[in-house]
Amino acid sequence: MAKDKKVEQITDMEVDFAQWFTDVCLKAQLVDYSGVKGLFILRPYGYAIWENIMNYLDRRFKELGHENVSMPVLIPESLLQQEKDHVEGFAPECAWVTMGGSEELPERLCVRPTSETLFCDHWSHVCHSWRDLPMKYNQWCSVLRWEKTTRPFLRGREFLWQEGHTIHATPEEAMEETEQMLEVYADCCEDLLAMPVVRGSKTDKEKFAGAERTYTVECMMHDHKALQSGTSHYFGDGFARAFNITFADRNNQQSYPHQTSWGMSTRVIGGLIMTHGDNNGLVLPPRVAPIQVIVVPVAQHKPGVLDKASEVYEALNAAGIRVKMDDSDNSLGWKCAEYEMKGVPLRLELGPRDIENGVCVAVRRDNFEKITVSLDELTAKIPELLEAVQQGLFDKAKSNLDSHVFTARSLEEARQLQEENGGFIRTMWCGELDCELKMKEEAGMTSRCIPFQQEHLDDVCAVCGKPAKHMIYWGVAY
Amino acid sequence: MAKDKKVEQITDMEVDFAQWFTDVCLKAQLVDYSGVKGLFILRPYGYAIWENIMNYLDRRFKELGHENVSMPVLIPESLLQQEKDHVEGFAPECAWVTMGGSEELPERLCVRPTSETLFCDHWSHVCHSWRDLPMKYNQWCSVLRWEKTTRPFLRGREFLWQEGHTIHATPEEAMEETEQMLEVYADCCEDLLAMPVVRGSKTDKEKFAGAERTYTVECMMHDHKALQSGTSHYFGDGFARAFNITFADRNNQQSYPHQTSWGMSTRVIGGLIMTHGDNNGLVLPPRVAPIQVIVVPVAQHKPGVLDKASEVYEALNAAGIRVKMDDSDNSLGWKCAEYEMKGVPLRLELGPRDIENGVCVAVRRDNFEKITVSLDELTAKIPELLEAVQQGLFDKAKSNLDSHVFTARSLEEARQLQEENGGFIRTMWCGELDCELKMKEEAGMTSRCIPFQQEHLDDVCAVCGKPAKHMIYWGVAY
Repeated sequence: MAKDKKVEQITDMEVDFAQWFTDVCLKAQLVDYSGVKGLFILRPYGYAIWENIMNYLDRRFKELGHENVSMPVLIPESLLQQEKDHVEGFAPECAWVTMGGSEELPERLCVRPTSETLFCDHWSHVCHSWRDLPMKYNQWCSVLRWEKTTRPFLRGREFLWQEGHTIHATPEEAMEETEQMLEVYADCCEDLLAMPVVRGSKTDKEKFAGAERTYTVECMMHDHKALQSGTSHYFGDGFARAFNITFADRNNQQSYPHQTSWGMSTRVIGGLIMTHGDNNGLVLPPRVAPIQVIVVPVAQHKPGVLDKASEVYEALNAAGIRVKMDDSDNSLGWKCAEYEMKGVPLRLELGPRDIENGVCVAVRRDNFEKITVSLDELTAKIPELLEAVQQGLFDKAKSNLDSHVFTARSLEEARQLQEENGGFIRTMWCGELDCELKMKEEAGMTSRCIPFQQEHLDDVCAVCGKPAKHMIYWGVAY
Repeated sequence: MAKDKKVEQITDMEVDFAQWFTDVCLKAQLVDYSGVKGLFILRPYGYAIWENIMNYLDRRFKELGHENVSMPVLIPESLLQQEKDHVEGFAPECAWVTMGGSEELPERLCVRPTSETLFCDHWSHVCHSWRDLPMKYNQWCSVLRWEKTTRPFLRGREFLWQEGHTIHATPEEAMEETEQMLEVYADCCEDLLAMPVVRGSKTDKEKFAGAERTYTVECMMHDHKALQSGTSHYFGDGFARAFNITFADRNNQQSYPHQTSWGMSTRVIGGLIMTHGDNNGLVLPPRVAPIQVIVVPVAQHKPGVLDKASEVYEALNAAGIRVKMDDSDNSLGWKCAEYEMKGVPLRLELGPRDIENGVCVAVRRDNFEKITVSLDELTAKIPELLEAVQQGLFDKAKSNLDSHVFTARSLEEARQLQEENGGFIRTMWCGELDCELKMKEEAGMTSRCIPFQQEHLDDVCAVCGKPAKHMIYWGVAY
C-alpha cells in the first residue's frame, strides 16, 4: 500500500453545504484555484465532464443545422455601446484591455462577456439577401465577467460556455429557434445530466440585457435552491436595427432580420455536483461520466487476478464502455474511497473467489447496492446497470424537485414556505415589477420563471391582490 | 439563375501572391475582419477546416495519453516574470488588462500569449510524488500577441491553437515526448494536410523563449517561402526550478521534473492555402476538406434530375463521405466557380444524359480531370478518387519542396540561389550566432532548422569558413 495516499475527508453536506461543494470540487480534482481570484483551472477530470457535455450539445447543434465559428476575444468599447440595453447590462462587469505591448490603446477593448455585438457587426458585413438566411452560428469559448464574489463553476470571473447566435428572415422563425434551443438544453439537462428541469420565461426584470424575451430551464439542487441551467433569448430586430443588419427579401425590399442567442456554460457542472452529490463526494450520471466503470482487482498479488481483471477491462472497453482499471499498489480501501469521491457510477470488484465462481461484484455509486454479475454476461449486464444508475439518479432528482414545489396565496405564506422547505414557491402574479421587488425584499426570493405549463391557482396576485396574469415560480437561486 | 450572385474574381498568384492569399481567405469565406486590427473572425467554412485539424490532433493526443484541461485566459504580471527568458520573449507583445469593471486592478494581467507559466503554477500545487508523473496536458484555446503587422491566419494578434504541456520524472522521458509530439505534427502536416515537412532543430536564436531545445516542422509554400508549421520544446528543469515544482522520487528524494510544451495553430491553415491553392481559389486535400464532394445537378428543372441527384447524395452520405448537394437556382457556371473557390476536392455533375447512361461526371479540383463514373460503382469509386486527389496534392507539394532545396558553399552563393529560386538554401554552419546574423543581413534569410537528417556538404561554415558543426537550412519565412 502506498504510504503517501490517504483517504480524503470532506465536509458533511448537512453541516455546511457550501463547504461540501467546494470540498467536492477540489477533492474530486475537478478544479484548482489560479493566481487570479475567480479564474479557475479546469483539471483533466473536470474538463472531461465538460467535453462530454460539449460533445452532446455540439452534435445536437449540428444536427439542427448550426455551424461553429470563432469570434475575437476582444470587443472595442464603441461596439459594445451600440445597443444601449446591452451595454448597460454588461459594461459594469467588463475587464478592459488598455495596453498593447508598451503602448496605450487609442480605444479600450473589453474581454468578451458575451458576443452579440461581434456577431452583429459581422452579420452587417455578410448578410445581404434572403438567400443568406438563416445564419445559425455557435461558438465554444470562454467569457469574462468581473464578479465580486466567486465560486468554482457557479460564479467565475471566467467561465467556459457555448454561445449560439442566429438571424432569421421572420420573427416566427426566430421564435421557433429560441424555443427549439431551449428544448435542446432541457434534453441535455434531463437526458445527459439526469437533472429534471422546469421550462419557462424569465420576467422582464430577469431577462437578458437587450432581449425581448428570455426562456430558461431551471433545476433544483439537493439543498432546494434553484439553478438556472441554460437560457435562450429572442431579440426581435432590435440589435439588427442598432447594428444596421439588413437583407433584401424575396420582393427585393430591405428588411431587418430577427435574432436569437442561447447559451449553456460550465455552471451546469456546478448543478450536476449539487444535484447528485453525497457525503462521499461526486456522483456522476453514467452518460456524462468520464469513467463509467472502474475495475478494482481484489488481492491483486494472487495469481490470475490481474490477468482476469485485464480481461474484464478489455471486454468492457471493446464494448464501448468508458472503463478504467486501477492496478496501482494503493489499498482497496483507498481505491474505493477515491472512485467514490470521483463519482464513478460503477465499481467492479474482482478477487480470487469471484474468479473461481466466474463472477464479479458491481457496486453502484448512487445507492451502494452490490450486484453479483456473471463474467459471461458482463458486456450485456454492465450497460443495463449503467442505465439503471442513470435512471435512478434522474428519478431521485425528479422526486426531490416534485416534492419541493409549494403553492402560496400570499406573500407571507410564500415567505414561510420558503423558510421552512426551500424549493420553488409558486404563486399567481400580476406581472408588475413592484410585486417582484417586494417578493425579493420581504421573502428573499427572485422570480425563477413563468412556467410554460401554466395552472390557474387563484384569480389574484399573491403579493398585491390585483388581477393575476401568470403563475410564476419563486426561489432562492445560485 | 440568381441575379444577385456573380462569380468572384481573385488576383492572379503570379501577379501578387500576398494579394492572392488575402483574396482567397475572403472569397472562400474563411475569414472576416473584425473591428480590431489583427483579430480575425473564423467563418463557418474556415472554422470547419480547423475543426477537422482539431479532431485529428485531439485523437492523436489522447491515444498517446494526454488529457485536456482549461487554464485561465489571464496571467498576473508577476507570474509571467517568474522565468526570465520567457518574460523577455513575450512581455513586449502582451495585451494588458488593467481595469475590472470600474476599478483599476492592483496588478495588471496579460491576456495569455502562451500558458507555460500557468501550467507551472498549477503543477507547483498538484505535483507531489513520482506517482503523479508524467502529467501530460493539452489545452485548446486562443492566445494574444500584440504584433505590428497582421495577416489572416499567418500573423494575427489573436490566433487559435492547442498548447501541450507535460512534466516528466526524467530528462530522457521529456526528450522522448518532445520528439514524439513533433512526429504527431509531421503526421498531421503530411497525412492530413498533404504538406510535406522538413524536421529539425531550431538554432539558439530561433528557439522558444525559455526552452533548452526547440524542434520544428518546416513546410514550403507555393511561392517557395518557408512556413514553420508546428514546434515542440524541451525545457529541461528550468521552469520547474523557477516555479518550484518538485516531486518525491522513488527514493523519496525531492527532485525537479523535466518539462515540454508543443503547439500547432490556425497558422497551418495559412500554410494549407499557400501550399495547394491556385488561381481559381482554395484547393483542399480531401481528408481535411469540410465538403469532400459537391453534387451539382445539371439542367435540374428536367424531370428526374433532382431525384437522381438526391439519390447520389444520400448514397455518398451513407458511405460516410462529407457530401453536399447544391440544388439552388444559381447557374451551373456560378456553382462551379463557387466550389472551385472553396477548394472542394470533387465536383459531381449529373444531368439528364448522364442519368440515361447511368453515369455521372466527377471533376477533380486539383487538376480539373473529368472522370466518368458509373452510378453503380459510385460508393466504391468516389473514395478512391478522393484518395487520388489527396495523394496527388501531396506529390505535387513534395516535388515543389524537393526541387527547391539548393546547396550553397558561400554566403554569396546562398544569397544568389535564394534570389533566383527561393526555397531552402542548405549550407554547412559553424553554429555561431554571428554567422546567422550575417546571413540575415546580407542574404535576407533566417535559419529554418538544423535538419535531423544531416548530410556532410563541406568541412567549413559557408559564412565564416571556420570548421562546420551542422548542415542547416536557410530560407525566407512567413
